[in-house]
Formats: sequence, C-alpha cells, structure tokens
Amino acid sequence: MSSSLSQTLNKIEPADKDIIELAHKRQDSLTKPRGSLGKLEDVSVRIAGMRRCITSTSDNSAIVVMAADHGVAEEGISAYPQEVTRQMVFPFLSGCAAVNVFARHVGARVVVVDMGVIGGFEPHPLLECQSIGFGTANMAKGPAMTLKQATDAIEAGIAVIEDQIAKGLDIVGTGDMGIGNTTAASAICAAITGRPVAEVTGKGTGIDDKQLLHKIAVIERALDINHPDGKDGIDVLSKVGGFEIGGLAGVILGAAANRIPVVIDGFISGAAALIAYKLSPLVKDYLVASHLSEERGHRVMLNYMELTPLLDLGMRLGEGTGAALGISLVEASVKILREMKTFDEAGVSDKGAEG
Amino acid sequence: MSSSLSQTLNKIEPADKDIIELAHKRQDSLTKPRGSLGKLEDVSVRIAGMRRCITSTSDNSAIVVMAADHGVAEEGISAYPQEVTRQMVFPFLSGCAAVNVFARHVGARVVVVDMGVIGGFEPHPLLECQSIGFGTANMAKGPAMTLKQATDAIEAGIAVIEDQIAKGLDIVGTGDMGIGNTTAASAICAAITGRPVAEVTGKGTGIDDKQLLHKIAVIERALDINHPDGKDGIDVLSKVGGFEIGGLAGVILGAAANRIPVVIDGFISGAAALIAYKLSPLVKDYLVASHLSEERGHRVMLNYMELTPLLDLGMRLGEGTGAALGISLVEASVKILREMKTFDEAGVSDKGAEG
Repeated sequence: MSSSLSQTLNKIEPADKDIIELAHKRQDSLTKPRGSLGKLEDVSVRIAGMRRCITSTSDNSAIVVMAADHGVAEEGISAYPQEVTRQMVFPFLSGCAAVNVFARHVGARVVVVDMGVIGGFEPHPLLECQSIGFGTANMAKGPAMTLKQATDAIEAGIAVIEDQIAKGLDIVGTGDMGIGNTTAASAICAAITGRPVAEVTGKGTGIDDKQLLHKIAVIERALDINHPDGKDGIDVLSKVGGFEIGGLAGVILGAAANRIPVVIDGFISGAAALIAYKLSPLVKDYLVASHLSEERGHRVMLNYMELTPLLDLGMRLGEGTGAALGISLVEASVKILREMKTFDEAGVSDKGAEG
Repeated sequence: MSSSLSQTLNKIEPADKDIIELAHKRQDSLTKPRGSLGKLEDVSVRIAGMRRCITSTSDNSAIVVMAADHGVAEEGISAYPQEVTRQMVFPFLSGCAAVNVFARHVGARVVVVDMGVIGGFEPHPLLECQSIGFGTANMAKGPAMTLKQATDAIEAGIAVIEDQIAKGLDIVGTGDMGIGNTTAASAICAAITGRPVAEVTGKGTGIDDKQLLHKIAVIERALDINHPDGKDGIDVLSKVGGFEIGGLAGVILGAAANRIPVVIDGFISGAAALIAYKLSPLVKDYLVASHLSEERGHRVMLNYMELTPLLDLGMRLGEGTGAALGISLVEASVKILREMKTFDEAGVSDKGAEG
C-alpha cells in the first residue's frame, strides 16, 4: 500500500544543514585547491545534506520514464503525429531509445510507466501500468483532467517511486514521453511563474515559426478558458497538465519524502518539479537540475526554483536523457567526498604552507 | 622504437569528411527529433570522422597525467609550495587524487608520467619515467629549456602515447600536475594567440589580486627576455613552456597521427594543444575540448583553435579531471550512433508523417 499525497507531503523535511556543513569541511580538506571542482563540489555537499551522509554510495540509480498522451495534440501543436507517444514506448522497453543508451552508459535502470497513453498496452514485464486514462482532454477547450485524476496521477507516481525504493535506490532521474507535452509544460510554467506565454513557449520537437505562434495562441486560450490558480499545484495540473507530468511530480515528492536525490531532466520534468514545488517548497532541497534544455522557458522554471543546471549541451530530447548524464556527474561528485584523501592523509602540503 | 616528431607530423591526416557525412545521416535517422542531442551529436560525428567508423567502440580509454616542475616557481607565482608537484604524484599512484576518482568513475586507466619533477622518483610499477630534467629553468631569467629538451619532451610524449596505443586505446584524455604551470600556460597562450598577458592570466590554484599582478609582470618579463616566435611551437615551448606541456603536446600529436580522439582537459592541456596545433594545424580535427576552465585565458585558447567545450562546471583543478568527465560524454555520444535504432528499424513515425 503506497502513501497518499498528504502523507507524502507531511513526510518531506529540509535537507540537513549540519551534514552539509561537514561535507563542506571535508571538500575543503581534500588534496585540491578549495573550490577547484566548481559546481560539482556544490552538488556533492547538497547530496550529503539530502542523504544525511557525507560519503554516501550511489550503487542503485534509476530513471523513471513516464508516458502519456495529450488531448491538446488535436490542435496541431507538435511536429510529430500523436501515435508517436505509443510507438516510442516500445523502443524504451526494448532498450534502444536514447534514454536507454545513456542509462546503460551511466549504470542506471530504466523504469517505463504508462501514465495514460491512448490505447494502452498488452502486459509487458518491463512496463508499469499506472494509466489514469487514454490521454488528457484538450486543455484548449476545458480542463485537461479532473481534480481526482490529478491527485491520482501524483499518487501513482508516489507508488512508482516507493516501489523503486523498496528495490534499492540511491538516486533517481526523471524522464518523459508525450506528444504535445511541451505545450502542457509551457502552460504550467506560465501559470505558476506568471511569465507571459510567449516567453516560456518553444519549438518542442521542431515546429516552425508560424506553428510556434499557433502553439502560443493555443496555450493562451487554454489559460483563458481554465484560469488555473498558479498557487495551487493540483489546480494547475488538472487544468493544463498531463498524466505523465502529474506522475513525475509524484515521483519527485515521493523521492524527497524518502531523502532520495532527484535529478530532473529538461522542460517536461521541470514542469513536474514546478507542480511538486508548489505542493511542497521543501522538495527543492532534493532537486538537482541535470541540464539546461534548448526549450525556451526551461531557464525560467529553473530560476523560479533557484536551481542551477549542471550541463548545457543544447539538448531538447526529453526521455530522461539529460537526467542520465546528470546522474553520472552527481555520482562523480559524491565519489570525490568518499574516495579522495585529505592533505593530511596524503602527506601533501596545503596552500600557503611555504611561509 | 617510438616515432620521431617529424615522422609523427607527417603521419597526421585530416578527419574523414565522407564518414562524417555518413554519421550525420545516421544521427538524423535515429528515433529522436533531429539535432535534439545538441553538442553530443556534433561530437559523435566528429569521432566517426577521426576513427573512420560511424559505430566505433570505446572500450579502452586512458588519461595521461604528466608532472613536471617549473623554474619560474621561484618568482612566487603560485599559492602552493613547489614540492607539491612531487607530493601529488603519490596520490596519483595510489589512486586517491581527484583524477583517479573520476577516471575510475568513467572506466579510464590513469597513466602517470614524470616529465621532469625535481628530485625524480624511485622506480614504481605505475610511474613512467620520461624525465627531461629536474624542472625547467626560470623563464623570467632566460629560456625555460633548450630546443633539444623541447623536442625531447614532445618525443617522450609520442613514446608514451604509442605505448598506450599498443596496449589498446580508443580515446585518450590529457592531464597535468606542476606547481607554476598556469604561469607557463599563460605565457604560451599570450605568445601564440597574441593576446595581452593580463587577458590570459588567471589566479591558478588561488592567488590573490596582488599576487596576480605580480604573476602578470613575471610573464611579461619572460616574454620580453625570451621573445618567443608565436608561429613556432618548438620555440615557444622552449622559451616559456614546461616539460609536462611538451610531453602532452607529444601525446596529442601522437594520438592524432594514429587517429585516436584526444579529450583535452583545461588550461595546461590547452597550452599543450596550442603547441601541437602550431606544429600541425590538422591536430584540431582530433581534439575534443572537455570543459571550459575557470582559469582566465582558457576561452581564448579554445576560440583560437575553434573548439567548443562540452562542460562548463566552474572547474580549475587540472590533473585530467575535466578530461575524464569529457571522455564519458564522448563515449555516450558514440553509443547513440551505435546502439539506437532508426525510425524505420523501430517502427516509429517520423516528423510530418501525419500529413
């Protein structure tokens, strides 16, 4: 029996400041100029604070990839046909999509979850079914989902992450698949951050300038019709969200409640993080931004949550590809704390020891 | 018997443009929006061009860490005492320095080479001795080394890389250790790029503003006294270089001659790349810039060689730490070409297939 949303929210505590301080001290004593590993030092001490351990291990890592369809796809806002959502689940399961390649490379397992793909799937040993429905409704015509579906999606995500924790989990990455989901993510971003739609809407999988103007108009219409309350994560999710975005918000909340670092992927995972953050600002302590997406609006999301991305490789694929690469960097940073020696231990003269 | 410098220079050929074109086509056919993996797609096709194979493997990777002392240290331009060069070789050998941690993390072997540390070392199974002398002379008073020593250092690097290639090598990273070597690297950068010393000189391991002005003055004096010819890599190396910088230039040239990708680390490796580039501009085709160092002047070097760094993590440690992380990203990019399926193979609809 997995935890409810309210149980999960109640369980989330801030990262441990004392452990962060200890980790800082250890970083400063290791055989390298202080601060010379830059952002990786910052990440390593944050992980210590999340996990309550300055020399934590990261043997078990997973990337949760959630797929769902979006009713707004009927407005013609994507470069790809809607059936691609369903079609891409099969490469995820057979291990030949980009996220599988990167996950193998960094030693993370991939957990594929159907959160609401049109038509559903035959049972498959590697596919978790948590489907909330065969795609959301078209947010340009009314709410994308009911309030109950929004809570159900988040609680499904909590169930998924609690199951993974039971199997052994030290760090988790988030990933997504859903034709039309940059439209939902932009709407969430505009609703929560208050920025203009045009400023947080990009070309997704590769639409042209004219299609972009259309996409912006569709999102503006969805916000006008639904007037989501930007202070209420559940309301925003139900009005303009997606089932996979709700599921990922649940993964984030459930991980934070269990002191597991969450490496968020790009724009869609950022929208899920925004939803989670509105439900509990404390989740921020457990979030690591893997990369800055090429998708316009991602920086707005990260700035809103005061997160600094590790990578900036011009990526805009989603699936958890950025999260996989980010997990590897986080693990590298933690290994520095665990495996390096101090100046004293190594018999190396520290700065200024000359005189 | 390893190759001479002239043999090596003669052997370097440009990357294969036809293979690059084939690799581009494959990237564009894989199940992801075209270009959605950003810089990693660019890297993957470049590696294909270097290795003459669009699905190359990268099972064998190494990071060559070269250490040497610098006579200019007596001018008081570093935050650390000179003996730290020697002291740090022991953590490299026992596997507990930062580069060892990152190398283990990415599955690369570390090759430690004494290119000219004061005092030398007892024989050690993991330490290669290629020492050109017990540190360079003080470049602020005259040439850092003779022209013969400069050529010897480069040829020693060629010998090191040829030995590694014989052991099996698909990709190599460069790393350094040498108190005072940011001073040498800044001098090389100014001499070759023609930029003012103040613009390419930074705080190295962590000197203060006043010490930085002193460091700049020392470098300006060294350039005034030695007037290195910026068009002649050997001349620059001999006047203001270091033994480890010469050795790394040899590693770069030898790798390029054998079609092995070279992932260059930060500022010191950048100086070695500049020397190699002046000796053969074709080496550029085999260089991947792992990261942008915090050290001022690194961007000037990369721009001069038209290289784009993969990472920007605020790192400034050297040792090959950035190269290790870069190797992992390069390997990930190559695996995309090798392990992902095309739209056709995976039965996924391509962009615009709807109508």
